[in-house]
Amino acid sequence: MSHNSFGHLFRVTTWGESHGPALGCVIDGCPPLIDVSEEEIQFWMDRRKPGQSRFTTQRKEPDLVKILSGVFEGKTTGTPISLLIENKDQRSKDYGDIKDKFRPGHADYTYQTKYGIRDYRGGGRSSARETAARVAAGGIARKILGPSVEIKGYLTQIGDRVVDRERCSMNVIDTNPFWCPDPEMVENWTEYLDGIRKNGSSVGAVIEVVAKGVPAGLGAPVYGKLDSDLAGAMMTINAVKGVEIGDGFSTAALTGETNADEMRRGNETGPRFVSNHAGGILGGISTGQDIVVRFAVKPTSSILKPRDTVDKDGNETEIMTKGRHDPCVGIRGVPVGEAMMACVLADHLLRHRGQNG
Amino acid sequence: MSHNSFGHLFRVTTWGESHGPALGCVIDGCPPLIDVSEEEIQFWMDRRKPGQSRFTTQRKEPDLVKILSGVFEGKTTGTPISLLIENKDQRSKDYGDIKDKFRPGHADYTYQTKYGIRDYRGGGRSSARETAARVAAGGIARKILGPSVEIKGYLTQIGDRVVDRERCSMNVIDTNPFWCPDPEMVENWTEYLDGIRKNGSSVGAVIEVVAKGVPAGLGAPVYGKLDSDLAGAMMTINAVKGVEIGDGFSTAALTGETNADEMRRGNETGPRFVSNHAGGILGGISTGQDIVVRFAVKPTSSILKPRDTVDKDGNETEIMTKGRHDPCVGIRGVPVGEAMMACVLADHLLRHRGQNG
Amino acid sequence: MSHNSFGHLFRVTTWGESHGPALGCVIDGCPPLIDVSEEEIQFWMDRRKPGQSRFTTQRKEPDLVKILSGVFEGKTTGTPISLLIENKDQRSKDYGDIKDKFRPGHADYTYQTKYGIRDYRGGGRSSARETAARVAAGGIARKILGPSVEIKGYLTQIGDRVVDRERCSMNVIDTNPFWCPDPEMVENWTEYLDGIRKNGSSVGAVIEVVAKGVPAGLGAPVYGKLDSDLAGAMMTINAVKGVEIGDGFSTAALTGETNADEMRRGNETGPRFVSNHAGGILGGISTGQDIVVRFAVKPTSSILKPRDTVDKDGNETEIMTKGRHDPCVGIRGVPVGEAMMACVLADHLLRHRGQNG
Amino acid sequence: MSHNSFGHLFRVTTWGESHGPALGCVIDGCPPLIDVSEEEIQFWMDRRKPGQSRFTTQRKEPDLVKILSGVFEGKTTGTPISLLIENKDQRSKDYGDIKDKFRPGHADYTYQTKYGIRDYRGGGRSSARETAARVAAGGIARKILGPSVEIKGYLTQIGDRVVDRERCSMNVIDTNPFWCPDPEMVENWTEYLDGIRKNGSSVGAVIEVVAKGVPAGLGAPVYGKLDSDLAGAMMTINAVKGVEIGDGFSTAALTGETNADEMRRGNETGPRFVSNHAGGILGGISTGQDIVVRFAVKPTSSILKPRDTVDKDGNETEIMTKGRHDPCVGIRGVPVGEAMMACVLADHLLRHRGQNG
Repeated sequence: MSHNSFGHLFRVTTWGESHGPALGCVIDGCPPLIDVSEEEIQFWMDRRKPGQSRFTTQRKEPDLVKILSGVFEGKTTGTPISLLIENKDQRSKDYGDIKDKFRPGHADYTYQTKYGIRDYRGGGRSSARETAARVAAGGIARKILGPSVEIKGYLTQIGDRVVDRERCSMNVIDTNPFWCPDPEMVENWTEYLDGIRKNGSSVGAVIEVVAKGVPAGLGAPVYGKLDSDLAGAMMTINAVKGVEIGDGFSTAALTGETNADEMRRGNETGPRFVSNHAGGILGGISTGQDIVVRFAVKPTSSILKPRDTVDKDGNETEIMTKGRHDPCVGIRGVPVGEAMMACVLADHLLRHRGQNG
Repeated sequence: MSHNSFGHLFRVTTWGESHGPALGCVIDGCPPLIDVSEEEIQFWMDRRKPGQSRFTTQRKEPDLVKILSGVFEGKTTGTPISLLIENKDQRSKDYGDIKDKFRPGHADYTYQTKYGIRDYRGGGRSSARETAARVAAGGIARKILGPSVEIKGYLTQIGDRVVDRERCSMNVIDTNPFWCPDPEMVENWTEYLDGIRKNGSSVGAVIEVVAKGVPAGLGAPVYGKLDSDLAGAMMTINAVKGVEIGDGFSTAALTGETNADEMRRGNETGPRFVSNHAGGILGGISTGQDIVVRFAVKPTSSILKPRDTVDKDGNETEIMTKGRHDPCVGIRGVPVGEAMMACVLADHLLRHRGQNG
Repeated sequence: MSHNSFGHLFRVTTWGESHGPALGCVIDGCPPLIDVSEEEIQFWMDRRKPGQSRFTTQRKEPDLVKILSGVFEGKTTGTPISLLIENKDQRSKDYGDIKDKFRPGHADYTYQTKYGIRDYRGGGRSSARETAARVAAGGIARKILGPSVEIKGYLTQIGDRVVDRERCSMNVIDTNPFWCPDPEMVENWTEYLDGIRKNGSSVGAVIEVVAKGVPAGLGAPVYGKLDSDLAGAMMTINAVKGVEIGDGFSTAALTGETNADEMRRGNETGPRFVSNHAGGILGGISTGQDIVVRFAVKPTSSILKPRDTVDKDGNETEIMTKGRHDPCVGIRGVPVGEAMMACVLADHLLRHRGQNG
Repeated sequence: MSHNSFGHLFRVTTWGESHGPALGCVIDGCPPLIDVSEEEIQFWMDRRKPGQSRFTTQRKEPDLVKILSGVFEGKTTGTPISLLIENKDQRSKDYGDIKDKFRPGHADYTYQTKYGIRDYRGGGRSSARETAARVAAGGIARKILGPSVEIKGYLTQIGDRVVDRERCSMNVIDTNPFWCPDPEMVENWTEYLDGIRKNGSSVGAVIEVVAKGVPAGLGAPVYGKLDSDLAGAMMTINAVKGVEIGDGFSTAALTGETNADEMRRGNETGPRFVSNHAGGILGGISTGQDIVVRFAVKPTSSILKPRDTVDKDGNETEIMTKGRHDPCVGIRGVPVGEAMMACVLADHLLRHRGQNG
């Protein structure tokens, strides 16, 4: 058991606080002889790093990843891979006000209550900065999965503005700062988020992550089900409050005959499914269809709007959070969600191979 | 690592198939000196057992639980508690047709693909019958949590029929076969499900489970977050396709100031929260408020309606599932969801005590 | 984490007390499509069961193993295998005297102190009877390893009587009640143990277990080293106080050049080693040579000789243990040590396959 | 599961190779509010670091430990503690010869066979340098145990020269470069090891580690027994080939009445034991007596004496290892053994608290 590790055969342990000298992760169980370089991992880091548009926090972090172990002459050796990312742009003075007050909606109060101490600078361990280590690990997980598995995340909703599925195209995702697949929604979200930002507010989002090319058979029922591990993994991302697989909550309103993904003769890799209400997972095991996961991110709790709260002594006060924050932290959740998908799939690939050869 | 275990310090391993001689679980790590009897556990078993109304499967199972170890003179000894439930009403002939065909929406295809073999009788390991063992474990978990923690589940939606929150009362839940808290919805659901049932169809549902009296401080960030473990736990229940904590997906549409649960001076146990959008969990740690979890159950895949499918050789065919099935398997999901809530909380109570004394 | 489980991918959880209705185990992670029958497992059970000679306890237990799950039409399905062994010959009245007194050298005192309660009947969970479940699990582990791996245990010492390695032959082991490989030692041990037994005393032993045919490459450095897992596994067997790999403690007196197992050109499976001081493991990974493990079993603590002790209230008293006991519990440790070897190797075979394909 | 982690509630994950930029560990589960400083950890590091006498490797490493996370204003926060130790004195050219040849008795061959690749520089991951991270972790584990638990290791044997127990005193241990408790053996070992060293040879050793002040009740039967975890932990240390608890292998020759540690009326913390053959552990649970563990370390495999071996292509050749090595690696095993004792005890302290409150 480990509070700060996830995965089993592909096992990632992260460490680090928002305003400490560095953060990082140790990846254990990675198969040997896989080509890995800092540049490859950096590619994924750059997608998550802050300050890339006015819609994410203005903290400037190069997020350069260093490989400290486990890779020799460009290849993994099967031993633990230690990855380190230095913190460069801490401005701890920004956080003086939250030292003694609890931000509503934030982990300040619960960390203090659980541990009797907290590193309040930038949220310490509860900062979204921790997710940088996940993205680094995800970069290696993708190498295990290989080029036949493609993982793609995007936003389907910001605030109450939902994309129109009819208009969506994967090609649009990388052309705008929102990972938005709906070309007509980009300007809408731009104006909307500019308003939120200038108003000192924040707003939530819904993210969808799809994995294509995943072979049938991954997942370990009944308590290591692929969908259970995905749900648990996504729910560990900061601010996530809901997770769906495939049609998710809308299946409640379906009948059995509508929800059934009928099968027709396929090819050597398996049958052809007529639909994919299941999101690529049945009985906790992948079907060979696209794995579809969706998660909701609540609005950032650190806002300029004053809110009622109490201080460490229980006295009533109010708080407004200065400093640099994401008006919609869901945007940077996209590469994080992709990374978690990659890590869970890599772990299950190895687990399946262990049991089933 | 174990595919069929969940929890860490309160650890439950389940085993058994729908049509084998028995099923059961082993509970490891239970504190000693807790009063436990078969009668107490049976109380919870009886809430889940099939055949209690025409809205659940007509399979007749007394689901009598036997304690085989770990309890001495009425008290737990700290050693593993083995619980056994015999299967009594297998009718394996009912399942002849599914031996060679895959039910769309069911785990038939994925088990066969993963393992190259499956116990097709009643769905084998993928049967909802496995959840009986969880309910038994949950009965013991409740004893660890003690009387100050109250866990209550209920249905908020069957098909597209959603309860009216204004009318709901906890007192109504146990007075109808649907665990419905909305007194005016009972007749509506009765008629609706009778139609579904007579039509040989099935329908999904949404279940909400609330835990009151949970102390602040439970949960182990960042990969053992209480909400992550709850989401993972609920997603292991058969047919679950989505999980929410607190306001869940609807938080995406909120602003930071709306979503913030403001705090006011409370009493010695902590501050008073003005609202509970967070569902009792912030940063993966309980706040002391009600823990609120919601999950969606898809419609039962075994239906009388014929559906297109393929057989084990990949040939196109169709299937209709005779035998006894739940028209809305979500109904029996209520005691199961409660049990998973109890097990996750008991585990985190011990984990918290281990680290924090 | 689980106190009563061992292994990772091949994971065994045992439960049960000496005088409860039954004991058993759940095996999770077993590969599918392996032929398994109760008869095959029973073969190994019969080697451990009590009452087969006057040198082991006279408790009569048929130790019949029942498969409750995980095997369908004679093959494993990849789901948990539940094995059950009923207790038949409890005579709880024998144990009245140990209810309130602590046997020196036994777990009575420590269980009582740790848990505040203990099932004193026959030692409860601390009874060597628990090892029956391990032998059952070992029977399945052997099937995973396949016929190319041969595991053989034997006694090399009873009391101060040590076998002469020059005279030892594997063919002798099964021809005497001591698993003694030295034909000239059998009569010596017979007379010696008869004396011990008639005297109401007991004596220790040393057991060696050798696994032949284990491929090179098993073991997961640095904390899942094969030798570490073997040492930990053997040390879980009741009464074991020491474990050695290969030359063990005698390597302390060797020089580097003497201890080095030199290598010469071999065949396609690897080099030929000139010696095997290492006991088949280097750096925690198997070399392809014989795996050699040795462990010491202390004398049975339950003896007819009166010993000074205290009772539950701390008062001074003395105790002599009536009832049926092993004059040399090390004898029945042989099949248990073999089973633990098989389980550890099966686990590492799957772990290696998971990481390395 | 993790190959490079040990412990459960106090969980340590180590990473790093002998000639990489750094090595380190992540400690998860440490209780909050414990005073920890780099200086305190450094105290223990300095006891293990190389080059302190002519009897250990002449590699010069300051082994300065940096705390990267988990400690805030001098106190642990309950979040992961990341410790980093830079490698300073790599001389990779020393190792050119071992790139393509396998040192007999070393892990070269097995790493290559398992992974198909190895970082041959200084033994890579299999280097004893990895143990620096354990000592750092042990420094924190000692803080959890508190001042009432005292852990002390020493050598009882180098080569065939065994200390005389009658002459031993704990006060002598820190006064000589061998951690030798026998004042009259120091000169003997000095001369002996000088000869071994000048001869380009190496020799084994036996180390004993004693923990005083451990409360009764630690240990989790039956597969998390304290002695099992200690045996597994010691066996993960490089070159260890045997582990004993208490009287260890010599118990095989004892009778039940001799081996029994009789009990007499004690004080409020428990009875008084008349002897301690058990080494402080019965039934896998601590008795409150001294915990006594002994382990054998084989001679260093890297020696100047030429030995027969094969190269990566299987061709016969010979090898002599230049570079800096320990003539008796067992000496530096003392602080490592102490650290493993501390880590196992700290883990079990938390585990016990988790289950038993």
